[in-house]
Amino acid sequence: MADAVLFEFLHTEMVAELWAADLHPGPGGQKTSLSVLEGIGFRVGQALGERLPPETLAFREELDVLKFLCKDLWVAVFQKQMDGLRTNHQGTYILQDNNFPLLVPMASGLQYLEEAPKFLAFTCGLLCGTLRTLGVQSLVTASVITLPACRFQVVILKS
Amino acid sequence: MADAVLFEFLHTEMVAELWAADLHPGPGGQKTSLSVLEGIGFRVGQALGERLPPETLAFREELDVLKFLCKDLWVAVFQKQMDGLRTNHQGTYILQDNNFPLLVPMASGLQYLEEAPKFLAFTCGLLCGTLRTLGVQSLVTASVITLPACRFQVVILKS
Repeated sequence: MADAVLFEFLHTEMVAELWAADLHPGPGGQKTSLSVLEGIGFRVGQALGERLPPETLAFREELDVLKFLCKDLWVAVFQKQMDGLRTNHQGTYILQDNNFPLLVPMASGLQYLEEAPKFLAFTCGLLCGTLRTLGVQSLVTASVITLPACRFQVVILKS
Repeated sequence: MADAVLFEFLHTEMVAELWAADLHPGPGGQKTSLSVLEGIGFRVGQALGERLPPETLAFREELDVLKFLCKDLWVAVFQKQMDGLRTNHQGTYILQDNNFPLLVPMASGLQYLEEAPKFLAFTCGLLCGTLRTLGVQSLVTASVITLPACRFQVVILKS
């Protein structure tokens, strides 16, 4: 029995429950459920960030913060590193995971693509929340091209 | 950054969200939120149980199943063993955890005792769901006497 899967199972059931409970019926309902998942992810990310040793919080470069997410955060949460990191050097970063664990249980047909956003919302929040604790304001969105690969776009907001 | 805390943070935020969202307003609302948490726990327990190697599923004695929960399941989920296991030899078992991790973040004043059930519902479901996969029908309830110690009562239902 591996404890690494516990997080994934809990995430899956939380997503299912939020959808089944139909928290917010009506046209904006699914959008609100996504926000709820993103909010939960944000607070988990903040909590994880607050447990970091103080020296971690003193990154010199923005790029170092993003590298930290791709390596340390990803290994802690998903037991693997992110597969790619690109930037336009103007505050936008693309983080690519070719085999994103929370998408792996989904069947890989094209017809399931529209189901993908609900399995990405928590992680968008997680990235944004961890960044916030590291002193970086950001907007994080995700997109899927071919399951189970996905990209997270991080736009750094300058204060 | 330890991944073991990830599950605990996610559990905490899930509980908070279910309460904040006020899923089911009205007098029975909190009771329904407890059922939702218990249901999520049940399905996570089933999923964990389904990943067990087949030989684990061939317990000879009921007591062996309960010992498995107290050792293997507890270590996998909470990185510690249960502190005590008692039985009346008539199908009722008391599992005691003197320092239950999901209660540790709570302040230990008596006034917080009434908050405890929402931090126990998921785990009651987890025990019940794992037992179900192991072929045992059960009723699981929990009680707290002094935070963060708690007891889970498992009543085996004979078919």
